[in-house]
Amino acid sequence: MSQPSDLIHDPAPVLVEIVRGAMVESRHRGAFAVVDAAGKVVRSAGAIDRPVYPRSAIKPLQALPLVETGAADKYGLGAEELALACASHHGEPIHVQKVSAWLGRIGLGEGNLECGAHLPTDVPSAQALIRGNQPPSQLHNNCSGKHTGFLCTAQCFGENPKGYIEADHPVMRRVLQAVGDMTGTDMGRAPAGRDGCGIPVIGLTLQAMAQGMARLADPSGLPDERRAASTRILDAMAAHPLLVDGSGGLTVEVMQVAGDKVRVKFGAEGVFCAALPTLGLGIALKIEDGAGRAAEVAIMAVLDRLGCFTSEQRMALHPFIEPKIKNVANVEVGLMRAAAATFDIAVS
Amino acid sequence: MSQPSDLIHDPAPVLVEIVRGAMVESRHRGAFAVVDAAGKVVRSAGAIDRPVYPRSAIKPLQALPLVETGAADKYGLGAEELALACASHHGEPIHVQKVSAWLGRIGLGEGNLECGAHLPTDVPSAQALIRGNQPPSQLHNNCSGKHTGFLCTAQCFGENPKGYIEADHPVMRRVLQAVGDMTGTDMGRAPAGRDGCGIPVIGLTLQAMAQGMARLADPSGLPDERRAASTRILDAMAAHPLLVDGSGGLTVEVMQVAGDKVRVKFGAEGVFCAALPTLGLGIALKIEDGAGRAAEVAIMAVLDRLGCFTSEQRMALHPFIEPKIKNVANVEVGLMRAAAATFDIAVS
Repeated sequence: MSQPSDLIHDPAPVLVEIVRGAMVESRHRGAFAVVDAAGKVVRSAGAIDRPVYPRSAIKPLQALPLVETGAADKYGLGAEELALACASHHGEPIHVQKVSAWLGRIGLGEGNLECGAHLPTDVPSAQALIRGNQPPSQLHNNCSGKHTGFLCTAQCFGENPKGYIEADHPVMRRVLQAVGDMTGTDMGRAPAGRDGCGIPVIGLTLQAMAQGMARLADPSGLPDERRAASTRILDAMAAHPLLVDGSGGLTVEVMQVAGDKVRVKFGAEGVFCAALPTLGLGIALKIEDGAGRAAEVAIMAVLDRLGCFTSEQRMALHPFIEPKIKNVANVEVGLMRAAAATFDIAVS
Repeated sequence: MSQPSDLIHDPAPVLVEIVRGAMVESRHRGAFAVVDAAGKVVRSAGAIDRPVYPRSAIKPLQALPLVETGAADKYGLGAEELALACASHHGEPIHVQKVSAWLGRIGLGEGNLECGAHLPTDVPSAQALIRGNQPPSQLHNNCSGKHTGFLCTAQCFGENPKGYIEADHPVMRRVLQAVGDMTGTDMGRAPAGRDGCGIPVIGLTLQAMAQGMARLADPSGLPDERRAASTRILDAMAAHPLLVDGSGGLTVEVMQVAGDKVRVKFGAEGVFCAALPTLGLGIALKIEDGAGRAAEVAIMAVLDRLGCFTSEQRMALHPFIEPKIKNVANVEVGLMRAAAATFDIAVS
């Protein structure tokens, strides 16, 4: 029999197992917190009181100033732009076109972005560029929507957009302030680094990150402007899941199937966050080793055990709940699964 | 201070740290064994007595029947073909051409391979195929050299090559027998699955895997034919590192810089093996979560602490000992490093 106390006190319990043939081939450890808007931990496993870089998983929090400053209204942004501001998109034509049009609308262009260029994560889109001998642009960067949102607030206030990715630029000061407020974190004292797209990345505890997401989901205790911004951002994510992620992505599928209850956002190095408006809860999860494949399986297990899916929805999402592993010849050779003992004890 | 007893008894100590800015962002756990040809454990960390799928890391052991059956001599194979038989190559033109020529020499073709087709892992080679609207062939599969070696023994004995990837085919029976002998493993009772390239994958303990590699490195106790085959295979790897791996790969760089002392071979899901002829030792290593990036840093740490590199060689190999992490805009944002405490205690 499993021993709850051992698991709960293990700072990094096994969350996900990679099975091949007759045995578990690899194991992913980690921690997660399910928290309400007041900061109460409803469910957890592992160490949730240590700083973790949230990476792209808190983009919905980083988008708050875009709405609160009035920039979104000044430039007539709709749900599509707000979804893109929260996105780690796949660089498909739809993403590139909409970000490009948005930049034009605020009087800027691709050259004002400071996120760098990388090939689209969407394979057909990447192959189309390669076939055409076209290098990727900064518009293809998965963070180009978020960065355009950043630039939008600079334009709104007539600030020089150059250097907007630096911590001391007014754009980034607003972003850091919003994240600090929502997560109850002293951002100046937390460990810091630089994110993949160049902006500061600040270590937050999983508990704090989950509380920030819970406040988005249940903004009843927030000031008027922030309450409105929170609702508008989560509504935009639910309305345009494809713009938040990309074709075939877990984020798209989950929000298409269960978008009334669930907003999810992943981050690099094995992070996932979720906001659950109907339950008034937030989730933050980190795979210790940084594996995205495990973060996906783990977030699905938490959502499932919190009752976010009907049995029909669970069937539709089964390819993400227990993904099959196929080999090069397309033969099924294994699967990924949540380590049931950890989740059943932590979330039941 | 670190406490050796804690570390040694931890079944999965931290081997590698991913650092970003002011803190460790992700951690990789695992285990490794350094063993001599008699099976004595010289150094270790973590649980080395549990079955692990070796994946491609034991290709040098799987190549033994190619030499021992006389197939290599019958078809006039040189060091290049033997290196390819041990390879997880990158699908560059040089790999594809040499495997194709070898298949022709034994009267077979690409269609006889049963490994499946995937895009080359070498990026320029993959992009060249995409630009030309050419799908990858089975020759591009990183295992095509190993599979051609398998087919070579079938042709040598006039066996029907079809189904050579199945456990009950004479080809695979010879391979499993050789691996079982070299690692002292009862292959019929060990946990089994199917590998990425379709052949059986059998769970071996890290200790057994390391002993198998040590016997390759110090074959003095082996029967004449196997002793000769072991030496010929390791010599081929040292003579043609580019054929074992691909441009810019760790395996190529290490064997080009320190090939007199070190033969290395990685496997999927975070496995690495090494044979050290001058020390008469074998190494087997598994990252618990399956991450290749961590297996690379960990094998370098073990080799370094075993004195395999001169200070000049260590400088040349530093990009693999402590790889830098750069972000999309090519700014250095972190590094990967061995968890010194684990290695200094286990290997000193």
